[in-house]
Amino acid sequence: MKIAIINGPNLNLLGRREPGIYGSLSFEEYMEQLKKAYPKVAFSYSQSNVEGEIVGLIQEAGEWADGILLNAAAYTHTSVAIGDAVAAVRVPVAEVHISNVYARESFRHESRIGPHCQGVVAGFGLDGYRLALEGLRQILESKGPQ
Amino acid sequence: MKIAIINGPNLNLLGRREPGIYGSLSFEEYMEQLKKAYPKVAFSYSQSNVEGEIVGLIQEAGEWADGILLNAAAYTHTSVAIGDAVAAVRVPVAEVHISNVYARESFRHESRIGPHCQGVVAGFGLDGYRLALEGLRQILESKGPQ
Amino acid sequence: MKIAIINGPNLNLLGRREPGIYGSLSFEEYMEQLKKAYPKVAFSYSQSNVEGEIVGLIQEAGEWADGILLNAAAYTHTSVAIGDAVAAVRVPVAEVHISNVYARESFRHESRIGPHCQGVVAGFGLDGYRLALEGLRQILESKGPQ
Amino acid sequence: MKIAIINGPNLNLLGRREPGIYGSLSFEEYMEQLKKAYPKVAFSYSQSNVEGEIVGLIQEAGEWADGILLNAAAYTHTSVAIGDAVAAVRVPVAEVHISNVYARESFRHESRIGPHCQGVVAGFGLDGYRLALEGLRQILESKGPQ
Amino acid sequence: MKIAIINGPNLNLLGRREPGIYGSLSFEEYMEQLKKAYPKVAFSYSQSNVEGEIVGLIQEAGEWADGILLNAAAYTHTSVAIGDAVAAVRVPVAEVHISNVYARESFRHESRIGPHCQGVVAGFGLDGYRLALEGLRQILESKGPQ
Amino acid sequence: MKIAIINGPNLNLLGRREPGIYGSLSFEEYMEQLKKAYPKVAFSYSQSNVEGEIVGLIQEAGEWADGILLNAAAYTHTSVAIGDAVAAVRVPVAEVHISNVYARESFRHESRIGPHCQGVVAGFGLDGYRLALEGLRQILESKGPQ
Amino acid sequence: MKIAIINGPNLNLLGRREPGIYGSLSFEEYMEQLKKAYPKVAFSYSQSNVEGEIVGLIQEAGEWADGILLNAAAYTHTSVAIGDAVAAVRVPVAEVHISNVYARESFRHESRIGPHCQGVVAGFGLDGYRLALEGLRQILESKGPQ
Amino acid sequence: MKIAIINGPNLNLLGRREPGIYGSLSFEEYMEQLKKAYPKVAFSYSQSNVEGEIVGLIQEAGEWADGILLNAAAYTHTSVAIGDAVAAVRVPVAEVHISNVYARESFRHESRIGPHCQGVVAGFGLDGYRLALEGLRQILESKGPQ
Amino acid sequence: MKIAIINGPNLNLLGRREPGIYGSLSFEEYMEQLKKAYPKVAFSYSQSNVEGEIVGLIQEAGEWADGILLNAAAYTHTSVAIGDAVAAVRVPVAEVHISNVYARESFRHESRIGPHCQGVVAGFGLDGYRLALEGLRQILESKGPQ
Amino acid sequence: MKIAIINGPNLNLLGRREPGIYGSLSFEEYMEQLKKAYPKVAFSYSQSNVEGEIVGLIQEAGEWADGILLNAAAYTHTSVAIGDAVAAVRVPVAEVHISNVYARESFRHESRIGPHCQGVVAGFGLDGYRLALEGLRQILESKGPQ
Amino acid sequence: MKIAIINGPNLNLLGRREPGIYGSLSFEEYMEQLKKAYPKVAFSYSQSNVEGEIVGLIQEAGEWADGILLNAAAYTHTSVAIGDAVAAVRVPVAEVHISNVYARESFRHESRIGPHCQGVVAGFGLDGYRLALEGLRQILESKGPQ
Amino acid sequence: MKIAIINGPNLNLLGRREPGIYGSLSFEEYMEQLKKAYPKVAFSYSQSNVEGEIVGLIQEAGEWADGILLNAAAYTHTSVAIGDAVAAVRVPVAEVHISNVYARESFRHESRIGPHCQGVVAGFGLDGYRLALEGLRQILESKGPQ
Repeated sequence: MKIAIINGPNLNLLGRREPGIYGSLSFEEYMEQLKKAYPKVAFSYSQSNVEGEIVGLIQEAGEWADGILLNAAAYTHTSVAIGDAVAAVRVPVAEVHISNVYARESFRHESRIGPHCQGVVAGFGLDGYRLALEGLRQILESKGPQ
Repeated sequence: MKIAIINGPNLNLLGRREPGIYGSLSFEEYMEQLKKAYPKVAFSYSQSNVEGEIVGLIQEAGEWADGILLNAAAYTHTSVAIGDAVAAVRVPVAEVHISNVYARESFRHESRIGPHCQGVVAGFGLDGYRLALEGLRQILESKGPQ
Repeated sequence: MKIAIINGPNLNLLGRREPGIYGSLSFEEYMEQLKKAYPKVAFSYSQSNVEGEIVGLIQEAGEWADGILLNAAAYTHTSVAIGDAVAAVRVPVAEVHISNVYARESFRHESRIGPHCQGVVAGFGLDGYRLALEGLRQILESKGPQ
Repeated sequence: MKIAIINGPNLNLLGRREPGIYGSLSFEEYMEQLKKAYPKVAFSYSQSNVEGEIVGLIQEAGEWADGILLNAAAYTHTSVAIGDAVAAVRVPVAEVHISNVYARESFRHESRIGPHCQGVVAGFGLDGYRLALEGLRQILESKGPQ
Repeated sequence: MKIAIINGPNLNLLGRREPGIYGSLSFEEYMEQLKKAYPKVAFSYSQSNVEGEIVGLIQEAGEWADGILLNAAAYTHTSVAIGDAVAAVRVPVAEVHISNVYARESFRHESRIGPHCQGVVAGFGLDGYRLALEGLRQILESKGPQ
Repeated sequence: MKIAIINGPNLNLLGRREPGIYGSLSFEEYMEQLKKAYPKVAFSYSQSNVEGEIVGLIQEAGEWADGILLNAAAYTHTSVAIGDAVAAVRVPVAEVHISNVYARESFRHESRIGPHCQGVVAGFGLDGYRLALEGLRQILESKGPQ
Repeated sequence: MKIAIINGPNLNLLGRREPGIYGSLSFEEYMEQLKKAYPKVAFSYSQSNVEGEIVGLIQEAGEWADGILLNAAAYTHTSVAIGDAVAAVRVPVAEVHISNVYARESFRHESRIGPHCQGVVAGFGLDGYRLALEGLRQILESKGPQ
Repeated sequence: MKIAIINGPNLNLLGRREPGIYGSLSFEEYMEQLKKAYPKVAFSYSQSNVEGEIVGLIQEAGEWADGILLNAAAYTHTSVAIGDAVAAVRVPVAEVHISNVYARESFRHESRIGPHCQGVVAGFGLDGYRLALEGLRQILESKGPQ
Repeated sequence: MKIAIINGPNLNLLGRREPGIYGSLSFEEYMEQLKKAYPKVAFSYSQSNVEGEIVGLIQEAGEWADGILLNAAAYTHTSVAIGDAVAAVRVPVAEVHISNVYARESFRHESRIGPHCQGVVAGFGLDGYRLALEGLRQILESKGPQ
Repeated sequence: MKIAIINGPNLNLLGRREPGIYGSLSFEEYMEQLKKAYPKVAFSYSQSNVEGEIVGLIQEAGEWADGILLNAAAYTHTSVAIGDAVAAVRVPVAEVHISNVYARESFRHESRIGPHCQGVVAGFGLDGYRLALEGLRQILESKGPQ
Repeated sequence: MKIAIINGPNLNLLGRREPGIYGSLSFEEYMEQLKKAYPKVAFSYSQSNVEGEIVGLIQEAGEWADGILLNAAAYTHTSVAIGDAVAAVRVPVAEVHISNVYARESFRHESRIGPHCQGVVAGFGLDGYRLALEGLRQILESKGPQ
Repeated sequence: MKIAIINGPNLNLLGRREPGIYGSLSFEEYMEQLKKAYPKVAFSYSQSNVEGEIVGLIQEAGEWADGILLNAAAYTHTSVAIGDAVAAVRVPVAEVHISNVYARESFRHESRIGPHCQGVVAGFGLDGYRLALEGLRQILESKGPQ
């Protein structure tokens, strides 16, 4: 199983910014844990602060990956372009948020990406990437959603 | 670990209604699978079509359970009362939806319960209960969200 | 032909409350007239003030009735759960209102149930149940809507 | 009993347009059936695509008819002028729609005419005219709404 | 001075409908009074229930009249076309309403014609036409607004 | 006939500010013209920039005047207090605006005072006070609105 | 004087939940104090988490009580059904809230029950029930509101 | 206990305006009754139609009073300035309304002052001042809200 | 190829009104140019100020034309009836606007007709009719949209 | 004539994605056709998924091109920055959309770019670029809009 | 250079209220510092809680000052009258706020005064008056904005 | 003191575009002036049209600068990502606008960045950068806001 993880703006600060809240783990360190836990999964990881680069990363992943874990961060709430890119690829995309966006400002409750995704996992911290991976795996192993 | 699963209106129809879409599994049958997969977890399961009974079920679960998996179905989008009940209990509550509510009518994008929950899992079918359970377990084993 | 009539909150007060406006007929007395007028139709009648019980009554009627006459009263305007129940049953459901809801407060102009019903009859007093019954009969005798 | 039936824009296409959906009956043919079924009722029938002509037709019918069956079609949702005309006549007016307008685009859920009508019948196909006629008859035979 | 008076939908009912409220004077009778009071003014009077005919009447009056008194009635609140016609003519147009529209339903508070008019007189009954005429005369006698 | 004229904020600048637009006449000079034109009318004139003082002026005028000409200027669009004062007095109040407020910013289209007034005259410059006076006189001479 | 006190969802938790905020008094203990303070008043007390049961409690109280103290809690902001029940009973109903709902989330500022009540008391803690009782007593002793 | 009562615009008309509705008692007469009923409370009473004077009255009362009873009348719904003044003083402020503002126009349902007050009493006529006084006394006698 | 051109309200003024802006060409003169440029296309041209007549013109054109060029002018933004007529005909309809409606008042940005059209051309002056004709020809010559 | 064609996000997928809908032509292949059809026009073509790069492409084209064909795709509906860039260049810009955006989701009906463009062509497939080119040419050959 | 500083409601409390937040400096003390720092500038300073008095202060300053520093506090967000006064004076007016209003409640993000001002300085504490003064000086020394 | 100046989209055009309005100074030339005026301040200057690059520039400046002057131009009104970046850095950020954005289109009145900034300076032309710098210096020299 080949999985692309794509992170959006400001997520490059993880581990450095407010470790009391976000933990002292950088995403790169978390990736190491994830790779160990799923040795049979081939991961790619990319992060960009640029909306249009995320569009490109999704287009590319759509060509080779079996599934995409996408945390578009702030662009989740404003980007029609990323939503269109998700709609254009054929592989299932899972929307992931580290925090519970529904407990934050009301503009973060709306997702322009969600309607085109398989599903969403939010509020479980970095562990949410693992949960979404589990969810995609279940679907890809052709048991399908119920 | 003690987990209460609480389902809302019309979810008693699972397995009987439109099996092509929702699968032929009733929630009771799915519960059997879940119990087998997690033999060390003590589950309780309840379903009600009545908003106020769900309020009561949450209050009760708040007294003995370590975590709650709550799929309030239609009441998710209209019930201040259930949101208040979630806010009143001290154990973490995970909001679960079988379908991707963000790909459905716009009134289903808003959750009156979400702001008081730990997080949400939506769009992964019945498997979403397992993912949310995994998420709660990670938190309860005091690694906490990141 | 088997028809279930389901009435919502406060309709149990008919005949007792403000007879100058609503008439001195209770719904039970009206049912007697209706049964006499349609001796070949098998009727069931139920009323509940509880939203979730109405969900249950619709689910049950969906199993045996040929059609449902539903006056959800106040829940018409707020209940996603009853709308979902109507969408889940396969028999045609006619929405009935005794008063002309479109001549009352603006929040009564919106129906969360109507999109899932066959049609609506409003403003013809208790006689509206007879009209909706006639409408369903025409459809069930397979002439269908035009 | 004298009844005026007034139809609005595009209803002149009935029977010719998409017979699979709307049936192969023109409104004129349906009128023949209705006249046979109610031999003691004196009917007039008129159709116009022009909002202001419908205003005039309602004004005229208000002078001689005992009741009006009005399907203002698209003007239902935009015409203050037709609403004012209905408010100006003293005979009861029943609003009729062939399709269930509440299951269509949201702008069709609002009626600028409804607040001034006796009631509404929608979603029962052409049979809705008969139902509304039955409703008006009941009222005109002075049993009144309940 | 040449003045065109143009009345919109349902104003042909004046004098016949609810004389207790609107008086027993038809607009034609009021015209006689107005002509007597202003013998040097050449009046034309027209009424139509049809939006597009009112557009035409304004276009024509724009060619010969010195000023227009326009009571577009219900179309005041919905007609972009009449607003465009007023914007297209070069003579000043005064908006007149018999009742105080600002004391009625909120949709009557908005005028799609007003932005293109010289001014508005509302709430002074039929006498409002005289007031608006006085206002236009003052402007046409080139004292202009202040 | 006793008439109180009450002007609101910034109207004390008339004649001094932008005479190209508003004319070189101060309101005091206009008052002289008006008094000459209506020698039998007893006028009082007051202006205030203070919302609450205008409330007081209306209360006082309500005790002795036969009618009030009120140009509340900017407070027209925001003042519930002035609207309440107009509602509390028994004499008819005419709302006057020098400019056509409906051709200006959209927040000037709404009047919190209009619903409680007899009527409105706008867009006829200072002459609007005379028109409104004429309108009130017609009403007070008990011909009444039509 | 006979008074029915009806409490809505989650109010059964009073005294047990967050005593630092809500006090350590359960509503039952507060009832004891109230009964002692008003020995001549006959009280009934009921609480329900179920919207429709509250509708029923109001209907019943409407048959025997002289006044009702209603704290519908979360249903205050969403329940048309409870509002209709209050409108249907003839005895005065006072709306009570323990906290100042106007200082909380904006959806708690709107009450679907308030328009049908005699009045509201909010923000005075449990003492608000006594204040509302005092208010109803004043009205029932036929001094009436001023 | 020292209590300042501050009344807003148009409340100086109490007793003179529409005694059938508001009673024949002026606020000054009511004050006499209140002083007799609470001989140990030192009252100050002031009324102003001017928003900014009410701001000043609140600031002053904040320096010497133990509590404030504030009926800002029309300014309740529009005044950020009065809301800021209430937020700036340290003594508890109770919002009082004579009528049930929630049963009147929708713009009266919103309070810009309420979020900064201790609580609100509305709909109990002049007696509402006594109820609010009772409520403040309970709080000031340090039993606190529950 | 048979093409019907249908113009809406006030477009009969072209060439006469403000030639500095709209040019000195009447639409009839432009039609001559168009016919010369496309000698093999059979054109019909009609204009009406009346919404319902435009409905009729579209219905008729739907019976014989291969494509329709529709400039509904002001009705573009308000007419459900014309939108329904476009939806009812089977031939492709191109929406044309002479000016760039998106650079004008915001109510002109919305089209009630556009959702049922093949496409739109706006802002290219009278030349827009030629462009839309070119567009329809490409489609009709069965290369289809891409 | 020098023309810059600038395409926005996801348009690089043309020809590869869903050829049944969008055709099997890539934009590069379409460019070849266009160049052949207009041998005297000097074209530049660029595509970017990045909003800010499109801003830069417009700025650059503004320096050398005679006109710009801009299909900003998803950014059409969200980008103030691209709208500002269009407003900053002096050459005419034509907005092009391949699909009929007015027949899609409502957020695609709004354009933040359109107010600054010469005009728009939408819904004619790839052929829309040719139509917009024709439109710009007409304008540039100084016949101007009408 | 002559500068008028005008402060709005509740700003008279500066230095006395919550010194931990707002500092222990009264505005009068700050004025002393400012005068010392700009010995060549002639300052006037006034404060009022009354909206209409601020209107008057702006009118007066418009007659003699070279520039105005205006902190209308709460009236910033509600006062059309003050906005009109700013629009009526010819000298540049700078809007000043001590706190960052854009980080507070959303109703404080809107300014009814800003559109008529030269510019705004907010969030720099009392130092904002100096910054705005610097800004006005730069403009008045006829370097102008860029 | 180390200060980073970050400019957003289209600001690279300063000095070249419409010098009559924006002046003939490029930002680079203005930077020279600023550096001369503040020889002890170490400045960095960067400009980007790309939203995500601005996110990056803010992140980097957050590591070494003492304060940031940010003119995000068009992204001010749409970018959650830049707002999040500002919230993530610890140094104070001042929002600068050359024009008075509050006097332009209403969508420019809202800032998604402002809530996270120290304050804003707008409408003082290029001089606004100096004012904001002065403001930050005052704060950094630990006198703090008042």
